[in-house]
Amino acid sequence: MTKAVLLLECPDRKGLVAAIMTFLVSEFDANILHAGQHQDAELGRFFMRVEFEYLAREHESLQQEFGARFERIAEEYAMRWQIAPSGRKLRVCLFVSQHLHCLADLLQRYQAGEFECEIPLIVGNHADGQKLAEFYGVPFVLLPVKGNKAEVEAEQMRLLAEHRIDLVVLARYMQIISAEFVEQWKTKIINVHHSFLPAFIGSKPYHAAFRRGVKLIGATSHYVTADLDEGPIIEQDVTRVTQGDTIPDLIRKGRDLERVVLSRAVRWHLEHRILHYENKTVIFD
Amino acid sequence: MTKAVLLLECPDRKGLVAAIMTFLVSEFDANILHAGQHQDAELGRFFMRVEFEYLAREHESLQQEFGARFERIAEEYAMRWQIAPSGRKLRVCLFVSQHLHCLADLLQRYQAGEFECEIPLIVGNHADGQKLAEFYGVPFVLLPVKGNKAEVEAEQMRLLAEHRIDLVVLARYMQIISAEFVEQWKTKIINVHHSFLPAFIGSKPYHAAFRRGVKLIGATSHYVTADLDEGPIIEQDVTRVTQGDTIPDLIRKGRDLERVVLSRAVRWHLEHRILHYENKTVIFD
Amino acid sequence: MTKAVLLLECPDRKGLVAAIMTFLVSEFDANILHAGQHQDAELGRFFMRVEFEYLAREHESLQQEFGARFERIAEEYAMRWQIAPSGRKLRVCLFVSQHLHCLADLLQRYQAGEFECEIPLIVGNHADGQKLAEFYGVPFVLLPVKGNKAEVEAEQMRLLAEHRIDLVVLARYMQIISAEFVEQWKTKIINVHHSFLPAFIGSKPYHAAFRRGVKLIGATSHYVTADLDEGPIIEQDVTRVTQGDTIPDLIRKGRDLERVVLSRAVRWHLEHRILHYENKTVIFD
Amino acid sequence: MTKAVLLLECPDRKGLVAAIMTFLVSEFDANILHAGQHQDAELGRFFMRVEFEYLAREHESLQQEFGARFERIAEEYAMRWQIAPSGRKLRVCLFVSQHLHCLADLLQRYQAGEFECEIPLIVGNHADGQKLAEFYGVPFVLLPVKGNKAEVEAEQMRLLAEHRIDLVVLARYMQIISAEFVEQWKTKIINVHHSFLPAFIGSKPYHAAFRRGVKLIGATSHYVTADLDEGPIIEQDVTRVTQGDTIPDLIRKGRDLERVVLSRAVRWHLEHRILHYENKTVIFD
Repeated sequence: MTKAVLLLECPDRKGLVAAIMTFLVSEFDANILHAGQHQDAELGRFFMRVEFEYLAREHESLQQEFGARFERIAEEYAMRWQIAPSGRKLRVCLFVSQHLHCLADLLQRYQAGEFECEIPLIVGNHADGQKLAEFYGVPFVLLPVKGNKAEVEAEQMRLLAEHRIDLVVLARYMQIISAEFVEQWKTKIINVHHSFLPAFIGSKPYHAAFRRGVKLIGATSHYVTADLDEGPIIEQDVTRVTQGDTIPDLIRKGRDLERVVLSRAVRWHLEHRILHYENKTVIFD
Repeated sequence: MTKAVLLLECPDRKGLVAAIMTFLVSEFDANILHAGQHQDAELGRFFMRVEFEYLAREHESLQQEFGARFERIAEEYAMRWQIAPSGRKLRVCLFVSQHLHCLADLLQRYQAGEFECEIPLIVGNHADGQKLAEFYGVPFVLLPVKGNKAEVEAEQMRLLAEHRIDLVVLARYMQIISAEFVEQWKTKIINVHHSFLPAFIGSKPYHAAFRRGVKLIGATSHYVTADLDEGPIIEQDVTRVTQGDTIPDLIRKGRDLERVVLSRAVRWHLEHRILHYENKTVIFD
Repeated sequence: MTKAVLLLECPDRKGLVAAIMTFLVSEFDANILHAGQHQDAELGRFFMRVEFEYLAREHESLQQEFGARFERIAEEYAMRWQIAPSGRKLRVCLFVSQHLHCLADLLQRYQAGEFECEIPLIVGNHADGQKLAEFYGVPFVLLPVKGNKAEVEAEQMRLLAEHRIDLVVLARYMQIISAEFVEQWKTKIINVHHSFLPAFIGSKPYHAAFRRGVKLIGATSHYVTADLDEGPIIEQDVTRVTQGDTIPDLIRKGRDLERVVLSRAVRWHLEHRILHYENKTVIFD
Repeated sequence: MTKAVLLLECPDRKGLVAAIMTFLVSEFDANILHAGQHQDAELGRFFMRVEFEYLAREHESLQQEFGARFERIAEEYAMRWQIAPSGRKLRVCLFVSQHLHCLADLLQRYQAGEFECEIPLIVGNHADGQKLAEFYGVPFVLLPVKGNKAEVEAEQMRLLAEHRIDLVVLARYMQIISAEFVEQWKTKIINVHHSFLPAFIGSKPYHAAFRRGVKLIGATSHYVTADLDEGPIIEQDVTRVTQGDTIPDLIRKGRDLERVVLSRAVRWHLEHRILHYENKTVIFD
């Protein structure tokens, strides 16, 4: 038996769930392991995630095989959909600068088996993460950014293509990605911003939070779009601060949040638990 | 169009979801509004909640009409199930003693339209809640408990029958309900216990929490069973305490938790969002 | 023995705590019950709250008596300070519109003895809160606001003066207070804003939060200043939301936050636990 | 200028704070950086932490120098006290078994400068942690426990003495420490237990939590005493779980809690922020 995850989105219509479920059972003799759905009543849209088990004919070509048979129903209901076999792990590239706490956390989780993925590459604009990459057996490429951003991005995209990367994770990568890069990697770049968005967009959010005198600080993981810190939010968390906390304290407390919200976002993406629409996400947790 | 909620539980089997969905669509021409499901892989059990809209034939007898047609599929899959029309509000009786914070909170939410129910009766073993009941227009019956527990419980059960009560909510009712009463009102009595169960079972949990020096205190809402504080947990929440907090501080902070976990449990029950099994609950939130 | 709370703020200097403590002990034969302090290293400022017990000479004139003797040290250290005897309860006026959940919550806490204050007056711009006020035995004055704001505010201020009010609590009072009013009642008006400030300033924050797709919603209590929603934050809290939550769900979940953050702010103010400076607050909890 | 932290505990008495502060200022010409205090009214005990700056005479012997002069006041007030110069970093030994997430987390924080300590030694009863220790440049000693516990503990204690260790951190060390060992290292061993104590004492707490159907799981860091999982609690935290979470999910979610509560406990201990009494802790955060 093979496991697969079907993610789909379409206009909401009567009989939709029955049609999908009946299709999976009758066409694939599928055993449904988990199914989650969401309706946006205002937009009249329907979202679904189905994790199922079935007897695959030829493992490699689920995409084609499934697609050929799913086409009829997908067209009928005007679905945007994707199917992912559990057998195939996504390939992830981490981007990092000098702050290593997210990188170390992701790599430890990777080693512990928390993520269903391959990490064939880490790209740094500083050398700080190199030793950590080596320790976890991941090749590290140093690409310093100094007035040569277009060139560096071209090289980054070449590397992503060469390594057949599915997802880029900005593990506190302190560079703004160009609109062109983002366009090509739409909803395939996850960033962590060190504030509770939409509060404190931009740089030095902990400093801004300190000045405003908030009683909780937060962190946010989101897909990167061309608008800085405006992409679809995947996960957020907060922690309490007091007047006794200095800016370095906020930074330290914030690191605990950043680790957690980024790693959750990565795991959900890898397990095909995220649908995005209208600058929002639906999480099938 | 009428709305209804179907809750069901059965052994997990292939084709189950498709069968249920197809039934609802083909037999009832239903429009699925929300559907949630849960599988317990270990026990091999399947749980589902479906909220749907359909053109009812005769509103009063959904139970019979639906049952007659659902029987075939229910038997085939060995389901335990219930159907509830949205039109019919459950009838709730509140039991209260001297602490009024949960009573006041529930009644204010009731008035604000947060609960889809009728509250035709409040029973108190002290008179403290009477004026509040009157203010919110709910009849209050005073039944003091002083060595006459069997008699009082008989009268309580008579009142519950007379008022066709569906759910009893113990809003900090400081009396232990007898096993006989509980047996007759299985999963129809919701209690709030002022600790993070299973820590600090029994009386004076805030005192026990203070002595143990915990850093968080909690509250738990649960269905009442014959074993004190051992029933299926519906909701829990916690809040931080410090060495500066005295026992009265814990009691005060705890009241905020009690209000919230009890009101969530009541709302979920009223909206048919809870299935219980094996001393646990499944919440379709 | 009489209890009193001393709150002070001054430039940070060596020997400050020793000087204050020695003064309290030697001049007042005081027994220190609690003492909290905070230094803002960046601004070089020192903040302190001391709760102490002493044998008062004449209870009514603590302010004068204490002041006369504290003057020397206060001048030497350039302190901004206030002394409050525990015997004198602050007088609080609640402003309310049509949403009653905060009003009901505050009044229930008031009745339960959670607040050390008198509430001699409730002012509403709608009549909705009148019955609740009556139930809790508090006079209610209806002052509708319809293009006569200056007039209404003049009457409000007259009432506040007449009732010797110390603190105004906006319990979801849906009117903007004029700059003149605010100026006269600086740090004496507490508001609750239904967002996690500084996110979603202004009206309809739950709608804005829904559109942005945040994963947590919040509420904030703060002192009112002339800049809308920009005053010193006193307390904040958040709760998790999902894609399943509609705007009415956010509003309902948010009410639980509003009750809690507003009531904490009120209690802290009444217990003289708040110092404000530079648009921030120091909370001695 | 040298920084030092004074921690003390004594019966509560009038004039105590003034006496201590006056002593620090007059005897040491100290500049108070932070001061926190706590009174336990029930027990009549007073607890204090003072962080101060002063012109040290001879850095090495603060303990002696300070002690000689503090003796008078300490005796007068029957204090239990300790002084720690900021210059001297505590020496920490980590004990580990096969679960590496706490070890990796602590070492990354250590490298990032989050802990004011030296870690000269890691002891493992399995070899799993060895490479991680080497990566962070910390000597690793493998001491397998197989029916030779007394012998292993003797060797462990020899190593702790040899390396002049101040604190032992059990980073998910899956062995019970003998009463003799604990007695010698009283309040110098910090453990993390993977439940919200006192719920689910003993082994497999996530399995027990799953069976009980709790809605939140927790983790607890505490000082180790002879009674298993009964020592003074230092920190606790919880996270929400649902029916969708399997036991492996609980274990994964729990790891995030374990990392955070253990690292906070270690940091607080290293910064001399913890006083313990009567099986409780006072945290000066």
